[in-house]
Amino acid sequence: MKKRILISNDDGINSQGLLTLADKLKELGEVIVVAPDRDQSAAGHSLSLFRPLRIERFNGNKFAVDGTPTDCINLAVNGLLKDQKPDLVVSGINLSANMGDDITYSGTVSAAMESTLLKIPSIAVSLDARKDFLFGTATHYSKLIAEYVLENGLPEDTLLNVNVPNIPLEDVRGIKITRQGKRIYEEPIVEKIDPRGREYFWIGGNVLDYLKIENSDIVCVKEGYVSITPVKLDFTDYSYMHKLNEDLKDYA
Amino acid sequence: MKKRILISNDDGINSQGLLTLADKLKELGEVIVVAPDRDQSAAGHSLSLFRPLRIERFNGNKFAVDGTPTDCINLAVNGLLKDQKPDLVVSGINLSANMGDDITYSGTVSAAMESTLLKIPSIAVSLDARKDFLFGTATHYSKLIAEYVLENGLPEDTLLNVNVPNIPLEDVRGIKITRQGKRIYEEPIVEKIDPRGREYFWIGGNVLDYLKIENSDIVCVKEGYVSITPVKLDFTDYSYMHKLNEDLKDYA
Repeated sequence: MKKRILISNDDGINSQGLLTLADKLKELGEVIVVAPDRDQSAAGHSLSLFRPLRIERFNGNKFAVDGTPTDCINLAVNGLLKDQKPDLVVSGINLSANMGDDITYSGTVSAAMESTLLKIPSIAVSLDARKDFLFGTATHYSKLIAEYVLENGLPEDTLLNVNVPNIPLEDVRGIKITRQGKRIYEEPIVEKIDPRGREYFWIGGNVLDYLKIENSDIVCVKEGYVSITPVKLDFTDYSYMHKLNEDLKDYA
Repeated sequence: MKKRILISNDDGINSQGLLTLADKLKELGEVIVVAPDRDQSAAGHSLSLFRPLRIERFNGNKFAVDGTPTDCINLAVNGLLKDQKPDLVVSGINLSANMGDDITYSGTVSAAMESTLLKIPSIAVSLDARKDFLFGTATHYSKLIAEYVLENGLPEDTLLNVNVPNIPLEDVRGIKITRQGKRIYEEPIVEKIDPRGREYFWIGGNVLDYLKIENSDIVCVKEGYVSITPVKLDFTDYSYMHKLNEDLKDYA
């Protein structure tokens, strides 16, 4: 049977990253797009529990939801596609990288988290650029990694977080399996006065630099590799459990 | 010097869980409350990048922000308290448990994630109840664990996710250091027609049951223990990297 691939993102249904990805993955099966009706970047893994959601249908198996990326996946898997669940979810192509600690905020990665929890193999794809996007490189590797996952599956509770350097395909040095890296942030809060004399605050979020951690997502992408970080949804810090157990004996 | 403790939550600034926690922790130092001005449950680790935020100040070192729990922590640490950063962040007491996969959605845990990324030792506290909350048990253990962390610190990038059973203090069987458990969800999408004849959808999210994983948060709380799960913000699935490396050699 033809494979069914669900595509979503956090940049919204009209994002060029989403549309080129959907076109490319049609080479692998039936593609259905369910994406937010507007930009939901930095939405995190946020689910709309307290309000109804609307779905608008467009030509070509495209659906826009007035909610978060997590809402889109949940509505698609448990609602729209419940009779034939997707074989694969691909979230992206995000129009900037999702590496290091950024993945905890990322709507792109959160969409893939949601489908992973719903037991569908999932991939998040992001392009390390702010402009002049070279989608050809990202779609090439998206298809290749999607093929691998369709054939081999993924461990339960693990998704693939893919980041692609914004360079021509022939300049890519290959794929690296990486660990989550670490950015160094400087986040000054901008304080200003609005036209009506009231104070307001704006969260900065300038990235200063990143730690040079060997084999980390950030380092590998900067070196021209496509980075694949396997992300596990069990966040337990097993290495710290023993010490904590010892320490808290006196407290309990 | 007196310890400075920042308190936040996702249920909003008027939540009884927040207020009783703030009162109790005054026994350990100076308490400052910076919390959302309304309920932000299931907000995930979501940061407001595209709009200004407002802060309203109340008596007794209390500040309400018109944003997410993550916004509150970011504004507090990088803005309001930038001259003397807090020694500890406690997020809660949430008026329902945050265990198993729920922690990926939880605003309570996300607030503690944000302060952990900002290098402040952080604790999330949730009470396993939907009504008839026995706050005395939760505040007792919150203080005890807060004392431990103020004295011993936490590893970089690790926070403590605490869940407390809703039983009288004398019935608690002790503290257990646990791993993240696993719920079994049934999430039927509710489809209805609104008063104007338009279709709408509502995400369900009924918890059916949970896997009986030994020493998991859910199992231990049900048995009457206070559960402390150390949560690591490095989500890399190290155990899967080797296989992926082997497999993808042919693809790269």
